[in-house]
Amino acid sequence: MERWDLLLTDARIAPMRATAEGYPTIDDGAIGIGGGTIAWIGARADLPPHEATETRRLAGRWVTPALIDCHTHLVFAGDRSGEFEARLCGASYADIAAAGGGILATVDATRAASVDELVAGARPRLAALAADGVATVEIKSGYGLDVAGEVRMLEAIRQLAAGSPLTIRPTLLALHALPVEFRENREAYLDLVCDELLPAVAESGLATAVDAFCESLAFTVPEVERVFARAQSLRLPVKLHADQLSASGGAELAARAGALSADHLEYATPAGIAALAAAGSVAVLLPGAYVTLGETRQPPVGLFREHGVPMAVASDLNPGTSPLCSLREAMALAARVFGLTPWECLAGTTCHAARALGLDHDRGSLEPGKRADLAVWDVEHPRELCYWLGRPLLAELRIGGREVSRG
Amino acid sequence: MERWDLLLTDARIAPMRATAEGYPTIDDGAIGIGGGTIAWIGARADLPPHEATETRRLAGRWVTPALIDCHTHLVFAGDRSGEFEARLCGASYADIAAAGGGILATVDATRAASVDELVAGARPRLAALAADGVATVEIKSGYGLDVAGEVRMLEAIRQLAAGSPLTIRPTLLALHALPVEFRENREAYLDLVCDELLPAVAESGLATAVDAFCESLAFTVPEVERVFARAQSLRLPVKLHADQLSASGGAELAARAGALSADHLEYATPAGIAALAAAGSVAVLLPGAYVTLGETRQPPVGLFREHGVPMAVASDLNPGTSPLCSLREAMALAARVFGLTPWECLAGTTCHAARALGLDHDRGSLEPGKRADLAVWDVEHPRELCYWLGRPLLAELRIGGREVSRG
Repeated sequence: MERWDLLLTDARIAPMRATAEGYPTIDDGAIGIGGGTIAWIGARADLPPHEATETRRLAGRWVTPALIDCHTHLVFAGDRSGEFEARLCGASYADIAAAGGGILATVDATRAASVDELVAGARPRLAALAADGVATVEIKSGYGLDVAGEVRMLEAIRQLAAGSPLTIRPTLLALHALPVEFRENREAYLDLVCDELLPAVAESGLATAVDAFCESLAFTVPEVERVFARAQSLRLPVKLHADQLSASGGAELAARAGALSADHLEYATPAGIAALAAAGSVAVLLPGAYVTLGETRQPPVGLFREHGVPMAVASDLNPGTSPLCSLREAMALAARVFGLTPWECLAGTTCHAARALGLDHDRGSLEPGKRADLAVWDVEHPRELCYWLGRPLLAELRIGGREVSRG
Repeated sequence: MERWDLLLTDARIAPMRATAEGYPTIDDGAIGIGGGTIAWIGARADLPPHEATETRRLAGRWVTPALIDCHTHLVFAGDRSGEFEARLCGASYADIAAAGGGILATVDATRAASVDELVAGARPRLAALAADGVATVEIKSGYGLDVAGEVRMLEAIRQLAAGSPLTIRPTLLALHALPVEFRENREAYLDLVCDELLPAVAESGLATAVDAFCESLAFTVPEVERVFARAQSLRLPVKLHADQLSASGGAELAARAGALSADHLEYATPAGIAALAAAGSVAVLLPGAYVTLGETRQPPVGLFREHGVPMAVASDLNPGTSPLCSLREAMALAARVFGLTPWECLAGTTCHAARALGLDHDRGSLEPGKRADLAVWDVEHPRELCYWLGRPLLAELRIGGREVSRG
């Protein structure tokens, strides 16, 4: 006799476990949950003898893994809507940078904010993600750009996590932009990151991964390699903003480093994609930045498919290039502007997103032994999750089996 | 002494009354409301002696006119997410049409649904629009395509309106697609529309405007002209789906007919745009269809500006080409994919949208004598309404001064 805390039944289920045929679904399914974990999942007709403390009938609603947003910059101060408006009124990037805009504008605002202010500002954005079915969120630092500032951001992320039922994965994005005070001495900033920041963060356990922005306007391949080597010597896994605005060798670098993921990738080369496939890194696609920046070069989705590189989809939530607070919206855009199929969009925010965070052992698909993080949707088919734009579809979000209240 | 039902104060206000300088705002403003109408609006410092039954302090929040969605097909049965998926998996339009897809698929489902079913299906879509600040919605028929079917759709729209605090403007879209049963005899369908459908609708008062789809795959210029002439003889104003997929003379036709609006307009010609300007018709831009169809030809926004054609922005909410249930989302896309400025986006969903519906005499801007339809937003600047994607920003929606509950 199986004993469960909760039995969900009368459900249609998309467990998001890939087979050679795609992602099989269960028509009339049930899920037994105990201790926050999936104990049993299958067709209702096959239910074993059981006792459940609570039984919830879902009236044929669809159940998927709760969504996972594997690339965000959700903690920041200030907004950059003025810059957004200036760009639409004809200002160039150079104009905006000259007027003090860009990443460094957010750095100034973030350095000036208290940890409490950072947490308070982030909460409604986190709530907006959860309202659309997200249970796990990666959040990067990268608006501090000195030891104290980056550590403060990571502390804000930790405090945000402590007050939320969601799982939050903090990433140290030390190489985001070169801070103004190091403009004449890049090497000294790299020294600071390698000799002080990385050891401090590794020791405190404030981050679970290290990220960098590899691009002509940010950091070079050798600079990123130096920081990645140091991170890995401290047992911190790495990931990379790669090939977003030019073919800068980012995918190749990410693959050489065995990165969890390479993100953006609009300009990834065939050789870089083959290397990612060999390394097992995930390609994280970020349509919010693509449409907000008015880019026209699409990521090479056909080559990712051909090489079997798993594709994740994330919000890239940030105040400059992707003020996007809904992962379902990112899915809807990924379908429309990148041509991903609905199943690719859903895999990109469940099983592949879990892998991009190194969390596929315990989430991203619904199977016995994994966390009971699941979303229940008011839809007739999971493809509606990326078909509808701006329409709430979440019926309930459960994290570790427990229903999360909205707002 | 002025006597008001409600005083809103401690507000920043964007009344959306155009001047030569753009859209002036009020920094520390107040609005007096009586009998559902704006009695007074201005700087708090200038408030005349007054008594208000209720006073509501808005803590510096922004107030704009409630949004107006001037182009939707919100009432329908069935969804077309299967078609959306098939297209993303590589099916061509011809494949989809051969498999029974397209507008006619929605016609079949809509003809098979009862009025009650149509109303029940439409309600959550209308609620989603209202949740994002919309108080006035245009809804087209066009999935009946025979007298009984079109009248049933208009009855469903009337029933939806009766159960909602929103203003709903019903439009007869008789020329949407040629019904299958008239495939061999287009003329007979035109006869039916002119001789039976239009008179029936005019007599019953079920529609306040007449629309048509002028395109090679829909109806020709002479066919639309015949229907427009009949509509106008029955005192029904007209509007047009024009130049969406090709330069088909739609803008010119709309201008000749003195249409309220010409909608889509991706392929509008310079001559057509000059004609719209002379006729005073509004250009309604529909970015949801543009991104959902993966179009690459943008509407000629620069020419609209040059000729002074007012631009509205609408959701085009429909199950085939724009499953978009948020007007703010349409604004966010209009900025990103069409390059509209934030003030153009807001004018496009307030004052210009009101004009597109022939309702600018009583709504679309905040001024004495107009309806107290207004939205209160949790933002620091109105440009955030199109800057943020997928983030709820509405603090309250008032229709005729009364707060509307959500959901």
